[in-house]
Amino acid sequence: MARAWTLASRPKGLPTPENFALVDLPPRELAEGEVRIANRWLSVDPYMRGRMNDVKSYTPPFELGAPMQGGAIGEVIESRSDRFKAGEMVQHFGGWREEAVLPADQVQPLPQLDVDPQAYLGQLGMPGMTAYFGLLEVAQAKEGDTVFVSAAAGAVGSTVVQIAKAKGCRVIGSAGGADKCAWVESLGADAVIDYKSGTPVVKALGEVARTGIDVYFDNVGGEHLDAALAHGNQGARFAICGMIDVYNSAKPTELRYLARLIGMRMRIQGFIVSDYTDRAADFYRDMGGWLKDGKLQRNETVFDGLDAMPDAFLGLFSGGNTGKMLVRV
Amino acid sequence: MARAWTLASRPKGLPTPENFALVDLPPRELAEGEVRIANRWLSVDPYMRGRMNDVKSYTPPFELGAPMQGGAIGEVIESRSDRFKAGEMVQHFGGWREEAVLPADQVQPLPQLDVDPQAYLGQLGMPGMTAYFGLLEVAQAKEGDTVFVSAAAGAVGSTVVQIAKAKGCRVIGSAGGADKCAWVESLGADAVIDYKSGTPVVKALGEVARTGIDVYFDNVGGEHLDAALAHGNQGARFAICGMIDVYNSAKPTELRYLARLIGMRMRIQGFIVSDYTDRAADFYRDMGGWLKDGKLQRNETVFDGLDAMPDAFLGLFSGGNTGKMLVRV
Repeated sequence: MARAWTLASRPKGLPTPENFALVDLPPRELAEGEVRIANRWLSVDPYMRGRMNDVKSYTPPFELGAPMQGGAIGEVIESRSDRFKAGEMVQHFGGWREEAVLPADQVQPLPQLDVDPQAYLGQLGMPGMTAYFGLLEVAQAKEGDTVFVSAAAGAVGSTVVQIAKAKGCRVIGSAGGADKCAWVESLGADAVIDYKSGTPVVKALGEVARTGIDVYFDNVGGEHLDAALAHGNQGARFAICGMIDVYNSAKPTELRYLARLIGMRMRIQGFIVSDYTDRAADFYRDMGGWLKDGKLQRNETVFDGLDAMPDAFLGLFSGGNTGKMLVRV
Repeated sequence: MARAWTLASRPKGLPTPENFALVDLPPRELAEGEVRIANRWLSVDPYMRGRMNDVKSYTPPFELGAPMQGGAIGEVIESRSDRFKAGEMVQHFGGWREEAVLPADQVQPLPQLDVDPQAYLGQLGMPGMTAYFGLLEVAQAKEGDTVFVSAAAGAVGSTVVQIAKAKGCRVIGSAGGADKCAWVESLGADAVIDYKSGTPVVKALGEVARTGIDVYFDNVGGEHLDAALAHGNQGARFAICGMIDVYNSAKPTELRYLARLIGMRMRIQGFIVSDYTDRAADFYRDMGGWLKDGKLQRNETVFDGLDAMPDAFLGLFSGGNTGKMLVRV
């Protein structure tokens, strides 16, 4: 019998394993128009933390006691739709489970790029689109800009680094620990800050951004955001993608350099990647080109088996991943 | 002998009278192209606090021991320029002094609107332009928007209220104390929050902005900014004009609702009015029209005599003014 993770209780602060419960999914026949998918790869992403709260947001909260949702790649094993045949690899949002039964219109074929299927959960999927549209549309990064990106060893951040380099920007990344920093540097970053080194981020950034920053791509909030405010140039654009530092915290964000945005005419813009899905063709065209030119590298941190999924998810909040965090079923 | 206020020392935190020194200006003959102006009205504005610090910003710091500068309206009493004749009323930045000697190209004739000359230091001058371009260009306020403005009884805020009403917005103002709130309401505000009432701003705003806010015009920062983040609608635009709460404070700004800007795709944009001076004609055209239609009211808090100028300036930081704070010489 196929199993799924449900939300057992809503966390206060950092989630714990007790917030999740593994249940058997009752077997059922397909209705007309539905497909049955054996999931191969499941995604865990920081934004899912928000869905664990009972708060109205851009995605509805997970329901207590119901299977959780998220990006997934799987193989169609049974189909009552003209659109998909058994054996076909597809992507969908029926994650957090071994098997998904979905109407065919909630299932998409995989794009035809020369990559492993799980890449469509990371660099060639939602996190990659987040990097692409956040950097180029929201922050309007252009050749010659100095771009600062936090969580630069993460799925989104590592793609920001590489797109920014492909566009002719100078790139400063921040990551935690020597291994991650070395990887970010190998992606082409011109400078990397180790935020776990003990040096305040505002000081470390000042040392490598002597002429300031023009773009900040924010995945973490908090101290990194304040450092970006401290070193933003006139007209700097901040794309606020995530604030992993505050998702589990009841403490307010403390900003010492916020008033600089007046004199420097800086812009801080929050965004959601789903606002850009109608422009996915631009993304696949450019990413496909960079992929062929060898300009895109990626990394994955893989947990094996559905049982390990809460651990994979919780690892996102302790810096447990280099590149995309994935669960292989 | 004409006198001027000089910066005696740089304040830490809130300035004190000891930071200012009143000196005699040595008399001197006019050079070719210069004019001598007897100042009638002097402006004190919150942004001047920034110039008291020895920090590179959009305006250079005041020099220690030198006469301070600021907006002023005066009468030409001697001219060695073709551009101005004795008796003419003019505006310029040689404030904080009884008499200014300036090259004619640093002096402007007064616009020809049917108002008292001191209005060109307030609603029909820099503070008014700040309100106009901040609200309409930076925040892109449009008919039907709910606009929240802090320091709504100030020179800038009171003009924001009236322009927003003229444009068909719903307006919520915040001011300190019953008298100021009553005045803001008399300007047409649909709701007014008394931030001195003891109710947290975030709660008070929630009670009068049941459907959220689309625009926030920020003059104060801090708790007001956080309240606006808490109640911002999807796509809300924040024009950050000033942060009077933090100019004198070493404490960081604490924001509990900052992460909302992601899901709500909010934009926070700092701006400086001088970036819009080439579009002053738009401002005078629209303001002239509203003035004729009786849509603009203003108020002034006047201190008499140059000796009182530091008190007038310090009053800005304790909420001492309703409408524009001015010194009459």
